[in-house]
Amino acid sequence: MAEMKVVEKIMAANDQIAEQNRRLLDERGIVTVNLMASPGAGKTSLILCTVEALRGRLRVGAIEGDTASRVDADRVATAGVPVVQINTGGGCHLDAPMVRYALNRLPLDEIDLLLIENVGNLVCPAGFALGEHVNVVIASVPEGDDKPYKYPGMFSVVDAVVINKTDLLPYLDFDMVAFRELIAGLNPEARIFEVSCKTGEGIEAWADWLAGMCS
Amino acid sequence: MAEMKVVEKIMAANDQIAEQNRRLLDERGIVTVNLMASPGAGKTSLILCTVEALRGRLRVGAIEGDTASRVDADRVATAGVPVVQINTGGGCHLDAPMVRYALNRLPLDEIDLLLIENVGNLVCPAGFALGEHVNVVIASVPEGDDKPYKYPGMFSVVDAVVINKTDLLPYLDFDMVAFRELIAGLNPEARIFEVSCKTGEGIEAWADWLAGMCS
Repeated sequence: MAEMKVVEKIMAANDQIAEQNRRLLDERGIVTVNLMASPGAGKTSLILCTVEALRGRLRVGAIEGDTASRVDADRVATAGVPVVQINTGGGCHLDAPMVRYALNRLPLDEIDLLLIENVGNLVCPAGFALGEHVNVVIASVPEGDDKPYKYPGMFSVVDAVVINKTDLLPYLDFDMVAFRELIAGLNPEARIFEVSCKTGEGIEAWADWLAGMCS
Repeated sequence: MAEMKVVEKIMAANDQIAEQNRRLLDERGIVTVNLMASPGAGKTSLILCTVEALRGRLRVGAIEGDTASRVDADRVATAGVPVVQINTGGGCHLDAPMVRYALNRLPLDEIDLLLIENVGNLVCPAGFALGEHVNVVIASVPEGDDKPYKYPGMFSVVDAVVINKTDLLPYLDFDMVAFRELIAGLNPEARIFEVSCKTGEGIEAWADWLAGMCS
């Protein structure tokens, strides 16, 4: 039981800092989204599409989480978005202290919507609160329609599911009806958005949903 | 520092059981492969293709790891392969005690090659020895060519990289030369196999490599 106690202590400390992050974000009126997904599902691409779709309506900021490298932050910075890269040094998820570190380095007065790109992982990030208001998982068509079945911990806790890479549907055996039914069974309240960051299809509805939360 | 000590103790216990697993597998002459990948990269599909390619040459067994469900084990059992499903109950990786549990339930006298499908995760599984002889990561073309850069922990420890879903190359911006160069930089000894589990392309070379280790 000793190990379990340590884990509880870590989780309690994380939740406390997540709560402080949330208070800070509320005070500044910043709606914050925790974007989670498998590696390569298109988290950074979705952030870039969202920034474009909301340009002139909302000021977007970003926190980029990765086990290593800064390629994602570089891509986002090129779009004129204030961004902080967090490298977890091999760690499998972001936690609340990492996000607090990043918040201290962002121009919070210039941000309406903060998009946090978590580490690419469908398991661990679901267990760590960051201070976010909304949790979103991005699933991509090439991953297959059975992912909610295999990763129920993730798909059952999110507020929305974004299905990306719909442009690849003609080349893959992906059953959208079955996928939507799996999500409805696990998490009937979850909003579902079908998008392609390559063609832009569906991005407007997703961006409108985010904008609705910021008004 | 208390937490770090606990983690070390857990890792030492895992490594000890992994060592016992390895000894048992060596005694039975079973070559064991730890297959790691993102969710949806095609681990189960690769196992099924490998079983077909080796039919009549080697007797394959499998351990299927998932956070939940038994769909993968059902697919593999249909191919006539002895298989045990491990559900981690939300856990993000397999560990050596889980594999020992599965080994006790497999007909080891009827297996030459054991394929272990780890939980879909490019981070955590790389840190836990199972008793395997060979570590393999499957990357898939839709995930993008930058994955070795973002998950160096995984790509630097494996003996081979299988690039799956090459049939989708015409529809995606995936730079195979850049991908191979990233792997060569991180892990010059790693074998690289380009395959499509959909068309069967490249499976023969991969299966021959496995067969070569079993002879």
